[in-house]
Amino acid sequence: MKKIQLGISGLGRIGKIHVQNIQRNSTSVGIKAAYHTNPNSKNWAQLQGVTHFYDDYKELIEDPAIDAIIIASPTSVHAEQIILAAKAGKAIFAEKPIDLNREKVNEVVRVLEETKVPFFLAFNRRFDPSVEDIKKTIVEGKIGTPEIIKVISRDPAPPPISYIPSSGGLFLDMAIHDFDMAFHLMNQEVVQVYSTGTVFGDSEIKKLDDIDTAMTTLTFANGAIAVIDNSRHAAYGYDQRIEVFCSKGLCGMDNQRINQSYTADSKGKHMAIPSYFFIERYEASYQKEMDLFLDCLLQNKPQSVGAVDGLRALNIALAAQKSVKENRVVSL
Amino acid sequence: MKKIQLGISGLGRIGKIHVQNIQRNSTSVGIKAAYHTNPNSKNWAQLQGVTHFYDDYKELIEDPAIDAIIIASPTSVHAEQIILAAKAGKAIFAEKPIDLNREKVNEVVRVLEETKVPFFLAFNRRFDPSVEDIKKTIVEGKIGTPEIIKVISRDPAPPPISYIPSSGGLFLDMAIHDFDMAFHLMNQEVVQVYSTGTVFGDSEIKKLDDIDTAMTTLTFANGAIAVIDNSRHAAYGYDQRIEVFCSKGLCGMDNQRINQSYTADSKGKHMAIPSYFFIERYEASYQKEMDLFLDCLLQNKPQSVGAVDGLRALNIALAAQKSVKENRVVSL
Amino acid sequence: MKKIQLGISGLGRIGKIHVQNIQRNSTSVGIKAAYHTNPNSKNWAQLQGVTHFYDDYKELIEDPAIDAIIIASPTSVHAEQIILAAKAGKAIFAEKPIDLNREKVNEVVRVLEETKVPFFLAFNRRFDPSVEDIKKTIVEGKIGTPEIIKVISRDPAPPPISYIPSSGGLFLDMAIHDFDMAFHLMNQEVVQVYSTGTVFGDSEIKKLDDIDTAMTTLTFANGAIAVIDNSRHAAYGYDQRIEVFCSKGLCGMDNQRINQSYTADSKGKHMAIPSYFFIERYEASYQKEMDLFLDCLLQNKPQSVGAVDGLRALNIALAAQKSVKENRVVSL
Amino acid sequence: MKKIQLGISGLGRIGKIHVQNIQRNSTSVGIKAAYHTNPNSKNWAQLQGVTHFYDDYKELIEDPAIDAIIIASPTSVHAEQIILAAKAGKAIFAEKPIDLNREKVNEVVRVLEETKVPFFLAFNRRFDPSVEDIKKTIVEGKIGTPEIIKVISRDPAPPPISYIPSSGGLFLDMAIHDFDMAFHLMNQEVVQVYSTGTVFGDSEIKKLDDIDTAMTTLTFANGAIAVIDNSRHAAYGYDQRIEVFCSKGLCGMDNQRINQSYTADSKGKHMAIPSYFFIERYEASYQKEMDLFLDCLLQNKPQSVGAVDGLRALNIALAAQKSVKENRVVSL
Repeated sequence: MKKIQLGISGLGRIGKIHVQNIQRNSTSVGIKAAYHTNPNSKNWAQLQGVTHFYDDYKELIEDPAIDAIIIASPTSVHAEQIILAAKAGKAIFAEKPIDLNREKVNEVVRVLEETKVPFFLAFNRRFDPSVEDIKKTIVEGKIGTPEIIKVISRDPAPPPISYIPSSGGLFLDMAIHDFDMAFHLMNQEVVQVYSTGTVFGDSEIKKLDDIDTAMTTLTFANGAIAVIDNSRHAAYGYDQRIEVFCSKGLCGMDNQRINQSYTADSKGKHMAIPSYFFIERYEASYQKEMDLFLDCLLQNKPQSVGAVDGLRALNIALAAQKSVKENRVVSL
Repeated sequence: MKKIQLGISGLGRIGKIHVQNIQRNSTSVGIKAAYHTNPNSKNWAQLQGVTHFYDDYKELIEDPAIDAIIIASPTSVHAEQIILAAKAGKAIFAEKPIDLNREKVNEVVRVLEETKVPFFLAFNRRFDPSVEDIKKTIVEGKIGTPEIIKVISRDPAPPPISYIPSSGGLFLDMAIHDFDMAFHLMNQEVVQVYSTGTVFGDSEIKKLDDIDTAMTTLTFANGAIAVIDNSRHAAYGYDQRIEVFCSKGLCGMDNQRINQSYTADSKGKHMAIPSYFFIERYEASYQKEMDLFLDCLLQNKPQSVGAVDGLRALNIALAAQKSVKENRVVSL
Repeated sequence: MKKIQLGISGLGRIGKIHVQNIQRNSTSVGIKAAYHTNPNSKNWAQLQGVTHFYDDYKELIEDPAIDAIIIASPTSVHAEQIILAAKAGKAIFAEKPIDLNREKVNEVVRVLEETKVPFFLAFNRRFDPSVEDIKKTIVEGKIGTPEIIKVISRDPAPPPISYIPSSGGLFLDMAIHDFDMAFHLMNQEVVQVYSTGTVFGDSEIKKLDDIDTAMTTLTFANGAIAVIDNSRHAAYGYDQRIEVFCSKGLCGMDNQRINQSYTADSKGKHMAIPSYFFIERYEASYQKEMDLFLDCLLQNKPQSVGAVDGLRALNIALAAQKSVKENRVVSL
Repeated sequence: MKKIQLGISGLGRIGKIHVQNIQRNSTSVGIKAAYHTNPNSKNWAQLQGVTHFYDDYKELIEDPAIDAIIIASPTSVHAEQIILAAKAGKAIFAEKPIDLNREKVNEVVRVLEETKVPFFLAFNRRFDPSVEDIKKTIVEGKIGTPEIIKVISRDPAPPPISYIPSSGGLFLDMAIHDFDMAFHLMNQEVVQVYSTGTVFGDSEIKKLDDIDTAMTTLTFANGAIAVIDNSRHAAYGYDQRIEVFCSKGLCGMDNQRINQSYTADSKGKHMAIPSYFFIERYEASYQKEMDLFLDCLLQNKPQSVGAVDGLRALNIALAAQKSVKENRVVSL
């Protein structure tokens, strides 16, 4: 096996996770260079063994010694960097979302189809061990055909208000992962969306024309149903549950708690809160998605999550937005 | 305390449960007489200490020695018997539903308002110990205000096909209990209904223009949301779960299993199936509702579930039917 | 099938449970008469359909119209009543223990062997649905051979101090049920006992030369091991758990909670306390043991728990007492 | 804060974990050099940023540029390396056990007392998040005083038979961690030991005069009781549970499963197996113990686990061995 040289654009929270997961992965890959804007991140990366840095991401992307680009930059430049990398013939691992604008995403999809470079969209939750187990259970068919999927996805607290305007809103920022999850597990296209939502928490969110609570019903082409349940303020912690009702049984995943301890007293039995947030809850999935991306590259196998997956989830999210706004069922 | 004399109309499965629960209740009540059509039921009731039987329910209802009537007859005669009993000035404990027809229920509501007799509609699930605990948690307010309620109510198997035509269909026969539960726990009126449903199991159900799977979203007057999830064929057993998401926490109930045993082997840990069906799962609630009815009678306290509760649940069920049929959001 | 006529001696808490379970059982049995000393109990029994009462238990036992005697009297008269009933040729259902004195129990065993009357010793916990499921799992052999059994049996609070002197002490009063359980599930004789115990709660118990906490290790003839864990003061409620470690897996039972509800907040997830005490926790077992006794009588099948089972458990309890007193391993 | 220079002796499975955890820890420490015998391990360590290697551990230990030694070598050389490092004035992080021989451990304790170098014995399980939570619950005293501790510690499969002769046997190799845990959580010295054990699995173990199953009862100075339950062949996976019964409640830890997924079908509800083995189950504890060691070094705070903790656990293990051999209670 050849050794793959990687370039990474962005050394923020997620970028750092990728650096560590790449370094742990194997001796078949190396991080050739990074693009960054923050000196602390540069110091941090040097201690992890990253030795070369670019001040311009175009230079990074066009470095002929680099085989693949990891795009972990802010959302606003994802599309541009993907297109640059694709045109430079690089394999691409890109953080989601591709963009909040449907036209831009369509353009990315078009460029990727033309350039045919290997492309992996980092819907990391698909690679969570519990999710993989659910997927396996469904695919094996031992509990029959899926009829209903329910996804609970509630954050422990809303993001800073200052983040809301550029976030795309609850559906594009948060529910979009759950729409992808529903598709991933059901393996059916969505044909109809009904969503109802409101603001129960911070009224500033309402002023910004966003919501903090939504309940979305999806109807799939085969008649199966999804319910996606989102809230920005789960006081009891990050709530990430899935349940798939099938013709011969049920499968699902419970929350992962911060530890396995419990207490019992005259009031009952008490267990720990769920894992704090996505970094902790989905820790294993970041390693697995990177291993998978690199593995497919090394073995010339097709990547498992593509730009069309990003486009599909975006389309559902936009339909959900419209459904809330117009208080009606929206067809796709 | 005076001794209350009861008459019971109907000695089917539920009627028998009421007889046993009355006999266990206290020395302050007695079953003066029963109306029945089946000789085996008569024998059974005699062994339980019921000594007098009528062949005509009108005679039972009009027996001047009887203070209160327990109506456990088939749905088709509920309304008529309630009206007869109300006009005879008897206190009434009536099995749900009052009727499948909205006009008839409206008439019952009217007669009960005029006659002012004590009336209890047997929405027994409200009196399940777990449900009572959830209600208490919400009312106490320690976990804040309810924002979302989710009710899963799935039967282990569909009823006999022959029952479907007279059942009123999935919403009036099955989901109606869950609509009442959503109201009971949220204590808010429903203003909007969206329901999507289909047939995943026996296609005979489709031929009868009914469905076996439905997902209903209710919007309450204060913006809170309910999701009611119904299926007629839960292969893993009778599934009765509730979860209420509140501003400061979460409360809910899990399934009750047939026993507390478990096994662990190289494939994982295994626990028993849920309680078989409503008779087993809600056993305690039948005793509690009867105790409560009798207790309120003895103490001249108002009854806690009225005919208007039946009417409300029926209205939601009819709106859900219309929503599925017209594939649109229905306002109430 | 003939109709079996029963006489019941004792209408205390357990006697009343038996009356109700007999009345619910079938039309093949009837309670012909009861012996009692308390007028309230007599009134109660009359409402349940018991019409004849004796003031002397000898008359009850010797009533020729009675086929079987239910002995639910105080422990101090169990042995005498069993012997009387056996000599009168009656089938016997006797509450445990037979007696606290080994010689008396030996005499009862002898008389029962001579008279060959059907005899059932009410080790009711064997008939708990969870215990029956564990037994079934072990007997089926799917998880291999049992190697270790652990029984946790902790009361929510000690009995009144006034009860302690006549109780026989923690081993004969409380642990004896668990010793029977260990034998029942392992189906092996105990050859060695080590027990350590102390008083952690009410020091009055110490003054009476009893203990409130004990940990007993039993070694079975085949080398298998049991650990019996007893306490009189489980602040978190009645704790009744069993776990059997087998060569190919594990089986056991968890506590049954008073309801299935839960709450989650910023401190964690909270579930209800266990069932209050043995009457609630083992409710189903009382019905099942009586049904089984009556069923075996009606079908002339041998009874499943005999006086030798009582004797065995007593012998283990006495060895445990000696082990604590002499701080050494005791062989049986 | 000064930067601490570390030397590591041993790059086996545990040594590698330490290297990664050190590198992830902070910028205040560095691995100056490693001693190793295996070229693959050297390559691996170079990729992690370790640049200098010694072929003789004495040279490593005596390198004046090194402040602290991580001893992750085979058990047989622990004592020697600890003594060398102590005499060289180095801070020491040592893998357990110090030695299987009591005299050698005593000598190590003596040398450490004389040299007064910072010393940390890697009883990593004390730093598992669930264990830390139990410890916190006990220390806070909200559920009263501990009366009983039960530790279940069962391996999924026995080690290779070839390992058994040098292992020290089940008590010194395996139960010793649980003896330390019992002391750690109860914070009481053990005064009496009773242990019973046998071979239920591979009979080769018996030929080597070892056992694969043991049940040990410890009595603490204050009368509290511990039960340590060990098996080498838990078919359902690595079983690591603790439960502490206290005067006002209970605390404990359940097994950590490999994922949070579940399935339900007509046979019941099924959950995943426990984490595979100690590397997976106690992953977090390795990071936490190293962070704590380094943190205490940097801040000149006393280390939290000492050589006397190793000696205590060894003494209990030797008493347990004697108890099984002589079938009697052994006092300490």
